[in-house]
Amino acid sequence: MSEVKAYGAADPKADLKQINIERREVTPRDVKIKITYCGVCHSDIHTVRNDWGGSKYPVVPGHEIIGKVLEVGSEVSDFKVGDTVGVGCMVDSCRECEPCKHDLEQFCEQGMVGTYNGKDKHLGGHTYGGYSEEIIVDKYYVLSVPENLDENAVAPLLCAGITTFSPLNHWKVGKGDKVGVIGLGGLGHMGIKFAHAMGAHVVMITTSPGKAEDAKRLGADEVLISKDEEAMKKHANSFDFLLNTVPVGHDINPYLSLLKIDATMCMVGAVEPLEPVHGGSLIMGRKNVAGSLIGGIKETQEMLDFCGEHNIVSDIEMIDINTINDAYDRVVNGDVKYRFVIDMESLRN
Amino acid sequence: MSEVKAYGAADPKADLKQINIERREVTPRDVKIKITYCGVCHSDIHTVRNDWGGSKYPVVPGHEIIGKVLEVGSEVSDFKVGDTVGVGCMVDSCRECEPCKHDLEQFCEQGMVGTYNGKDKHLGGHTYGGYSEEIIVDKYYVLSVPENLDENAVAPLLCAGITTFSPLNHWKVGKGDKVGVIGLGGLGHMGIKFAHAMGAHVVMITTSPGKAEDAKRLGADEVLISKDEEAMKKHANSFDFLLNTVPVGHDINPYLSLLKIDATMCMVGAVEPLEPVHGGSLIMGRKNVAGSLIGGIKETQEMLDFCGEHNIVSDIEMIDINTINDAYDRVVNGDVKYRFVIDMESLRN
Repeated sequence: MSEVKAYGAADPKADLKQINIERREVTPRDVKIKITYCGVCHSDIHTVRNDWGGSKYPVVPGHEIIGKVLEVGSEVSDFKVGDTVGVGCMVDSCRECEPCKHDLEQFCEQGMVGTYNGKDKHLGGHTYGGYSEEIIVDKYYVLSVPENLDENAVAPLLCAGITTFSPLNHWKVGKGDKVGVIGLGGLGHMGIKFAHAMGAHVVMITTSPGKAEDAKRLGADEVLISKDEEAMKKHANSFDFLLNTVPVGHDINPYLSLLKIDATMCMVGAVEPLEPVHGGSLIMGRKNVAGSLIGGIKETQEMLDFCGEHNIVSDIEMIDINTINDAYDRVVNGDVKYRFVIDMESLRN
Repeated sequence: MSEVKAYGAADPKADLKQINIERREVTPRDVKIKITYCGVCHSDIHTVRNDWGGSKYPVVPGHEIIGKVLEVGSEVSDFKVGDTVGVGCMVDSCRECEPCKHDLEQFCEQGMVGTYNGKDKHLGGHTYGGYSEEIIVDKYYVLSVPENLDENAVAPLLCAGITTFSPLNHWKVGKGDKVGVIGLGGLGHMGIKFAHAMGAHVVMITTSPGKAEDAKRLGADEVLISKDEEAMKKHANSFDFLLNTVPVGHDINPYLSLLKIDATMCMVGAVEPLEPVHGGSLIMGRKNVAGSLIGGIKETQEMLDFCGEHNIVSDIEMIDINTINDAYDRVVNGDVKYRFVIDMESLRN
């Protein structure tokens, strides 16, 4: 074991502050990573503040991790010292159950091990995330970062990226499809970029007319203001796929009216009760509502490779770790375009 | 035009009683049918009582119609006088829009014409259904009834049958699949029969332990009492498909927990708001909720042919038309196994 510096919260009401945590020794399967950048995800805040219950303290958040390989175990051949690598939302799973065997480790029957607040199989206790100098991760959960991309702006791809890429990929969005992205935040701005790169006609769907210009800059072909009933009617029954990134419970019935027959709306943001869905909204047109959770390791690597090929990164604002508590308040207020990334050098100074 | 006897309701509070209605002359595309049997669907009652709003009076219900061909128009070649035929929930559609061209006339962009309370394109006003001596229907919407089946027990296939067959068919239920049918009524009992005939392992899911024996007689391999939390846990994440026939709004979250990764629950009963769905119920396991409405004409014929091949009919209780008002009360109280069928000879006497 070795002690490293990290930023963590002692309880649900505490601000994040510098603490020391322990990292395990490098085992034969492990990759030791010097963390250079770490994205700030809304889940970090929910966990720190125990919004979903069950948080374990101290919480050291961070699951959008970019870094340089410092050391590899004897059984590691895909990575070497100095490589730029990424770590996303999970650092372990059983790798033996049906979901794991089908590259859906996020649904591991034993439970995937979250990058933070997961059950640490090595040291006992719980895992600590990326707001830290270093992390040691089993090689299976380490991702290669394409060389042509800005490393800091790659960080959010490890969560916001895969969360939006995976459903667009799974439901086979492609050229000629009309795709709606509902909500323009950390997830939504990635959804627009991906759907555009996949060749779809992309419609940004938002309650805020003020977001139209930025949506178009990001790749949206059209903007639909969901409060505009006339505009909603004009787009009725016309969408091949809807990606719903709204992070809170809301009324999805108006969006269901936008879907074509047999089309799907996939929820990726709201992990809480939705307002009542009308049975008729599904029955009329054989429509579907689904959900999707990040993506498996193989698909996450595919997503990063896709980003390398299409020059896609996240729109970010860089911060130092000592401003993290202010950044959290800004995330909660929707005041970031579109993702904070921590320069982890600021933890070492 | 010709006048025929029918049973109809004058307003939302009125009992059904004998009235006279007008039927059009036989046009070149028409088939004139002497109605022999008509099933009683819960929608009949909702329409008579204006539960969904917009009912037009007098309402002459009935969209599970069996009869004999009395006369055919000059352009009709598929049917001849004396044939046993069926008419289901629709008697017209545009036959030109994309849904119609894809055999999904139930989603016709011009609106399908319901067998009753639809917009009558021939006489103006609204259409009158099968609680009647005769009906005249465009050949496209007339179905052939397999000769080996009991005609009276075929009647409910035209609505309850296709409503449950279509989703099982669309989601490709087959041998080796574990399929749950939720709710044992007019729809549910057909769902069990079809899923069993398709080769699935069928689990009847109900709140009523008293329904277990009958469910097994109908073809269920197992019965799962949804109030039994231990039993529900044992079946968690194990179903390939769920057919939800519950006719009222309810909490679907416990049922979503039964689905495998990527599996679908299809709603066919509840055309009203459901209790709040938890976003996490969909996100964890990439699960789907969908809806389905009857089926197209081509698929309805396929369903009837499937029934002929597998000797499937509805479990019915025969009634005379003059007991229809009592029958409605019994349907509302769930006191029928599993579908009333009116012997329309009783209207002629």
